Amino acid sequence: MDNKVTTGWRVIRFNGGQHEEQDDEIATEMPLTVRLDGEEFATIVCTPSDLQDMIVGFLASEGVIRTFGELKSLTLDEDRGYAYAELHIKQSTGKEFHSKRFIGSCCGKSRQFYFHNDARTAKTIMSRHPLAAEQCLELMRLLQESSTDFHQTGGVHNAALCTSDGIIAVRTDIGRHNALDKIYGHCLQNRIPAGDKIIAFSGRLSSEVVLKVAKIGCGILLSKSAPTDLALKLAEDLGITCAGFIRRGSMNVYTHPERIRS
Amino acid sequence: MDNKVTTGWRVIRFNGGQHEEQDDEIATEMPLTVRLDGEEFATIVCTPSDLQDMIVGFLASEGVIRTFGELKSLTLDEDRGYAYAELHIKQSTGKEFHSKRFIGSCCGKSRQFYFHNDARTAKTIMSRHPLAAEQCLELMRLLQESSTDFHQTGGVHNAALCTSDGIIAVRTDIGRHNALDKIYGHCLQNRIPAGDKIIAFSGRLSSEVVLKVAKIGCGILLSKSAPTDLALKLAEDLGITCAGFIRRGSMNVYTHPERIRS
Repeated sequence: MDNKVTTGWRVIRFNGGQHEEQDDEIATEMPLTVRLDGEEFATIVCTPSDLQDMIVGFLASEGVIRTFGELKSLTLDEDRGYAYAELHIKQSTGKEFHSKRFIGSCCGKSRQFYFHNDARTAKTIMSRHPLAAEQCLELMRLLQESSTDFHQTGGVHNAALCTSDGIIAVRTDIGRHNALDKIYGHCLQNRIPAGDKIIAFSGRLSSEVVLKVAKIGCGILLSKSAPTDLALKLAEDLGITCAGFIRRGSMNVYTHPERIRS
Repeated sequence: MDNKVTTGWRVIRFNGGQHEEQDDEIATEMPLTVRLDGEEFATIVCTPSDLQDMIVGFLASEGVIRTFGELKSLTLDEDRGYAYAELHIKQSTGKEFHSKRFIGSCCGKSRQFYFHNDARTAKTIMSRHPLAAEQCLELMRLLQESSTDFHQTGGVHNAALCTSDGIIAVRTDIGRHNALDKIYGHCLQNRIPAGDKIIAFSGRLSSEVVLKVAKIGCGILLSKSAPTDLALKLAEDLGITCAGFIRRGSMNVYTHPERIRS
């Protein structure tokens, strides 16, 4: 375990009319500002682990890069909370554009995107790799087992890249999106094809989570938590199988159940 | 309960080797784009309830307004997902400035702010209103009790504005920050002084949550979940009492315990 992920803190614990001072471990949170080609691009509040993975995944998720090779350099200054990224070819679209509202309406069928950036970068998943229901439960069990920081602090989320046989990589962050960006960056740097992989995730399935998974390119998204309706509409549209509430031997499959074998 | 907060969805439930189709209720999520004086300002992904509260709170939290009276008009177009806000006096600072990294260093003591906007708007809380440990537990119990949507969907967070006697207002959202913005907007519109109030919150205590509570002006923040170290450093600095892990009759007090009576 990366020991920068938690920090010691002295707390007063109240219990049954008594109170006493105790040492506790809590989740570390740091602001990291990304400068892109010399300009301030974004400040991400995150867990200080796997930061290079996170920045590569974040830049890809924002549509700034599509491959790791498009990055000329990436330098981290963890102490000051800065990352300096340089591209081989400077981007032409302005940063402002990335989070502009996207109004989709094409032949009467409007997709659920709300940012231009997502409409450009989220891919429809065509993968047909199936997974047995039992394997879904097992992958979520493995994710839980690997989450020592969560058990210790109660304050972080975990995302795992999996095959049907088990977990390939786990990433942790206080931010749900960062955990997924860390997985995305890991895939890009190691050129891991994602179409036949599965993402197991501790957090809720919001629209932003489904969009990230579509960008990574995975067809199956497993969570122990609840989904939102917009997340599921996007997942239906983007061809992603969403399963939630994977707990105590049961789960709900919300979209594209054709990939899940009972 | 606002029936737009949840949406029906047909799921396939797997349990013990069996599966069957069921009707389920899931949390509704909508993108809402705020246009400020004719310009696109931000897109918030949120639960479609108490949207006016949320936008007023969001604009105050971003430092655009300080009082409700600074807003000339606020019009909602829920169907299209737009809110149109107009100020009496157009703001001079550019929008870009709001999320620019803030580097604080004053006489060797650097505050924990990482955005300019927060350094301008987060107030140090001077309130001395105390609260008994038993009341903290009771307020969290009342919040849980009031959270019918959470019990139904597992997908939303709740924030409550409280006195030591009970809850004044509860707001719900899929986004932790939105739930607090809805409380902030409620306070501003109804000119509720917050210095003697308490915020009870279902979500984790990140730095952004503590900053919002400082902007609202409350001195005590109660949560059933875990804090981060940056949140606690900010809370120490801003004079906020943070209590977390309020569950099953016990709690941890992390900062400014002088307000909690045992």
